[in-house]
Amino acid sequence: MPEYKVVFLPGHITTTINDRETIFDAAVKTGITIKSSCGGAGTCSRCRVIIKNGAIQLNGTGKLTEQELAEGYVLACQAYPRDEIEVEIPASSMLSEHQVLISQDRELEQPPLKIKPLFWKVPLKLSEPSLDNHVDDISRLYTALNQKERLDFPRMGLDVMQKLPRVIREGDWRVTVSLADMKGCIEIVNIEPGWDYSNFYGVALDIGTTTVVAHLVNLETGESLGIEGTYNKQAIFGDDVISRIIYVVEHEKGLQHLQKTIITTVNELIDVLLKDHHISFDDIWYITCAGNTTMTHLLLGIDPEHIRLEPYVPAFNSIIPIKAIELGIKANAKARVYCLPGTASYVGGDITAGAEVIGIERQNKLTLFIDVGTNGEMVLGNSEWLVACACSAGPAFEGGGIMHGMRAMNGAIERITIEPSSLDVHWETIGNRSPVGICGSGLIDCIAALLECGLIDRTGSFKPPAPHPRVRLEDGEKKFILVFAEQSGTGCEITISEADIKNLLRSKAAVFAGIRAMVKLIGMPIEAIEQVYIAGGFGRYINLPDAIKIGMFPDLPLERYRYIGNSSIMGAKMILLSREARDDAEMLAEKITYLELSVGNDFMEEFVAALFIPHTNLELFPGYLAG
Amino acid sequence: MPEYKVVFLPGHITTTINDRETIFDAAVKTGITIKSSCGGAGTCSRCRVIIKNGAIQLNGTGKLTEQELAEGYVLACQAYPRDEIEVEIPASSMLSEHQVLISQDRELEQPPLKIKPLFWKVPLKLSEPSLDNHVDDISRLYTALNQKERLDFPRMGLDVMQKLPRVIREGDWRVTVSLADMKGCIEIVNIEPGWDYSNFYGVALDIGTTTVVAHLVNLETGESLGIEGTYNKQAIFGDDVISRIIYVVEHEKGLQHLQKTIITTVNELIDVLLKDHHISFDDIWYITCAGNTTMTHLLLGIDPEHIRLEPYVPAFNSIIPIKAIELGIKANAKARVYCLPGTASYVGGDITAGAEVIGIERQNKLTLFIDVGTNGEMVLGNSEWLVACACSAGPAFEGGGIMHGMRAMNGAIERITIEPSSLDVHWETIGNRSPVGICGSGLIDCIAALLECGLIDRTGSFKPPAPHPRVRLEDGEKKFILVFAEQSGTGCEITISEADIKNLLRSKAAVFAGIRAMVKLIGMPIEAIEQVYIAGGFGRYINLPDAIKIGMFPDLPLERYRYIGNSSIMGAKMILLSREARDDAEMLAEKITYLELSVGNDFMEEFVAALFIPHTNLELFPGYLAG
Repeated sequence: MPEYKVVFLPGHITTTINDRETIFDAAVKTGITIKSSCGGAGTCSRCRVIIKNGAIQLNGTGKLTEQELAEGYVLACQAYPRDEIEVEIPASSMLSEHQVLISQDRELEQPPLKIKPLFWKVPLKLSEPSLDNHVDDISRLYTALNQKERLDFPRMGLDVMQKLPRVIREGDWRVTVSLADMKGCIEIVNIEPGWDYSNFYGVALDIGTTTVVAHLVNLETGESLGIEGTYNKQAIFGDDVISRIIYVVEHEKGLQHLQKTIITTVNELIDVLLKDHHISFDDIWYITCAGNTTMTHLLLGIDPEHIRLEPYVPAFNSIIPIKAIELGIKANAKARVYCLPGTASYVGGDITAGAEVIGIERQNKLTLFIDVGTNGEMVLGNSEWLVACACSAGPAFEGGGIMHGMRAMNGAIERITIEPSSLDVHWETIGNRSPVGICGSGLIDCIAALLECGLIDRTGSFKPPAPHPRVRLEDGEKKFILVFAEQSGTGCEITISEADIKNLLRSKAAVFAGIRAMVKLIGMPIEAIEQVYIAGGFGRYINLPDAIKIGMFPDLPLERYRYIGNSSIMGAKMILLSREARDDAEMLAEKITYLELSVGNDFMEEFVAALFIPHTNLELFPGYLAG
Repeated sequence: MPEYKVVFLPGHITTTINDRETIFDAAVKTGITIKSSCGGAGTCSRCRVIIKNGAIQLNGTGKLTEQELAEGYVLACQAYPRDEIEVEIPASSMLSEHQVLISQDRELEQPPLKIKPLFWKVPLKLSEPSLDNHVDDISRLYTALNQKERLDFPRMGLDVMQKLPRVIREGDWRVTVSLADMKGCIEIVNIEPGWDYSNFYGVALDIGTTTVVAHLVNLETGESLGIEGTYNKQAIFGDDVISRIIYVVEHEKGLQHLQKTIITTVNELIDVLLKDHHISFDDIWYITCAGNTTMTHLLLGIDPEHIRLEPYVPAFNSIIPIKAIELGIKANAKARVYCLPGTASYVGGDITAGAEVIGIERQNKLTLFIDVGTNGEMVLGNSEWLVACACSAGPAFEGGGIMHGMRAMNGAIERITIEPSSLDVHWETIGNRSPVGICGSGLIDCIAALLECGLIDRTGSFKPPAPHPRVRLEDGEKKFILVFAEQSGTGCEITISEADIKNLLRSKAAVFAGIRAMVKLIGMPIEAIEQVYIAGGFGRYINLPDAIKIGMFPDLPLERYRYIGNSSIMGAKMILLSREARDDAEMLAEKITYLELSVGNDFMEEFVAALFIPHTNLELFPGYLAG
């Protein structure tokens, strides 16, 4: 098979592929993360690159425009080399490594009053042996530990046992014992001579389908040292959990590949955090991880296949802590990884994290928790009962499936207003940068504004347009130009098309239908919901009036709503610092009744009714009726 | 440093050493196990070899006789190469690999009525998932396991979790789960599709200072498949636990070296057993191990240094099961090793094993258990209380420190009578072979006979001899010739010297003084002992009247005595097959009060008084007085 060299510009990164491999495959080989939602299937048209030199064979051109074709763009996943190739990857096709913004609710984010972390160190003074007191070393240790921590015979590995006799004498009967919570039992993972017990850290992880966030925490003081976020590198294998699972099923080493990819993502984040704070890997002793059920399976290398197949059974919801070294996570060789428990295939540990953060199981008020991530999950209930569902919202609110959609990162338009008369567009971007795309909160604003200006009808279709430079029919598709090329950060127009709007409406309809299905199940009117916590990666601020206006959230008084940002990372951190919160979370995850929306309920009916703006039944939105 | 080649005959095994290393070191390097009690210190004179070619420098000649020197014998540990060397190791200097006889009490040896082994397999039928029953795989497994075995959420490793989803579907919801007892909790160590749950085996080990015995057991049926014994290869580093500990302390990698040596010994035994029974390593799932405290430390690679130093504190008495793979024991990668708990530095898991076998903690009668191995340990008590001590008997009863002493193996003289008039000697050997040495039971007979014939007095000294070819003064030492050279299996005389007799008397005095010290402690007369169980490697039969006659055991009615052979291996096997016996043993080991004989009691006084035959206080031996 002939082999060809491929050089990627601007970095001059080089690899070799054969004539049956694509430029996309070449990029995967080098570790360059080109945007892709379909994993190289040729359907998403995101992996646009420019061939600078060399002959290729093209299998298709996807959704590339005439102009793009003229400018030399091809889809990397459709391009096979027939010669040595030089490829330029435009910035817009690179998976950005910019910091993922971590919006958070400072009030909820306070460390618990009493820090009882999942890893801690205990200084002990052991009794000295004499002819009257000749019990063995380990009993001596257990007695001291029991007096101090009320722990009976915690287990220890052979490695700890092997160093025990030396360490206790080296420390002159003063030792520091490192304890790790193993869920249901405590393990002695290390023993050191003397009483130096500072410098031990933990990492809380939020492993989302799209983004991964890591939070570095001092386990002694509870202090937050830093937070870093990045794209989940698995994104090149598909945008959503279903395409990742399909990748696992269809590729021989797919599971190992995806596991390795998420571990690399995590390790890079930890690396950055440690370098920033001059901390060594060896000082990381515990890691908590909140992720959806598929992400948690992939992290642990457990086959997620049956999550996708009816009746949607995960391999596990709750699992005991694993050694970090078994997963390849860079941390102390004895560090443990605790994955927050989930409830079902589509209600995972990230939702448990959020539910724990808002303390839903202690609320007297009827509380709704909604996490709109790549999927949309929600929990409804109070101290007496809890029900949860996942509504397949799709990734639109995180920018997925939207031509110029993006995550809430620097340059993302997060607020939009449109002047009804002039159709002038005013926008605000995250970081006050030139706009490069539009994130969830911007998209919600956008739809509300387009409706208000009369540009679209309640089905989301463009009305017959009055001629205006911002309204255009291109390749048979109607578009509204939000940002002209000369104002944008990419040098290209930022638009919203009818297809984008329909995608977004499907997402909002799924969210609303999910809420209605749960409320119906418990036989209550939607107004009975007394408080709503909203989490997710929309942006720093979600425009709630607009979200209600388009029929995404119920028409409740605004003061009942609270936007709490990334509750997944908050919960992971909370549990890292509190064994009680961990116990709560385990109970919570088990207590939640999962409602499977795909069968035996009115979800589809509700969904179709919610595809309208705001809804077919306007009585549900008295505010809309009122004006 | 100059290096010289050393070739060992008859096998032509070759190695290279430098001029500061000895021929003994060379043998250790090649794995050839030359006899040695002192570990190469030049004091035991057992490592006799013949230099066939090449120049050596000798540091000393030890106890080599004129004749031996004339025949070219040197001590390997005193010989440094100055040239390429060819060495012959005579058969008498090789650590024999002959089978160690495993005397046992068939009645005690019966498997328990109810087999509840430390490893077992359970066939399970899991509920099939449906949209009404969509709990996760692991919960499904736990439910089935709880119904069958009343086990709540046993832990499992990541490896088991990773194969779980595939296995349960491959078995069409029928699986076989492998459970291993981890002391205090049960672990799922494997899961297989379907219901094939035969072919799983365990190995019980008795790790003695001198010998190691392995017993292969079918864990499903409780059937004993075979038993093998051999020398503990650590013997080349010294005869007793103290010299092994010194080796550890004085050599940089001493601990690893000794650990590796015992693991090699164990693996070779397992190898033989498995080959004999056509069983694969992979089918060995659990190993129990009874050993004294030092042997257990060395097996696990835990520093035994403080066992030897006042106040004699071991690193541990009881420890949770270890993975066989962590120790390097050849078995299934998931097999566990359970070491029987000990009570103190000199009362270890082998004694717990014996005490458990005789069920001492359930006895209403005042019971004495004596295990005379390389050390002498004993337990006294009943269902209400238990006390134990170790009496430093020394290795004489196992042939150590006796010129022609040997373990109870083929060719060992185990019974002796001497015709008082003619001084003709009648002997019986194990296996009816030509005699090659004399084992413990033979030595006891021998002393009793020498006394009866009037050849020695009550201090063990030879009386002024009537001239007789069997009585000889050689190198200033008086000897009695038991076997003339032409009748022996080695071609050399088998003798007993005054030094041998004194050694043996010290051993028997230690045993008797230990018994007296314990009885005194509890304020009871020695006759209060209602039953005595004797374990140890004397031979198949111990001549009890003779043992009482020389004052080793108390003068109790013979029917109170029972010789039970190797109770250490019996206990290890019993526990392998019974979780209840294991629980009993853990309680037993903790319940025993250890009496330290080296301090604060009358042991030394008792010891001196017991150096006489049978004792200075003849009132303790009414049978002796009666004739």
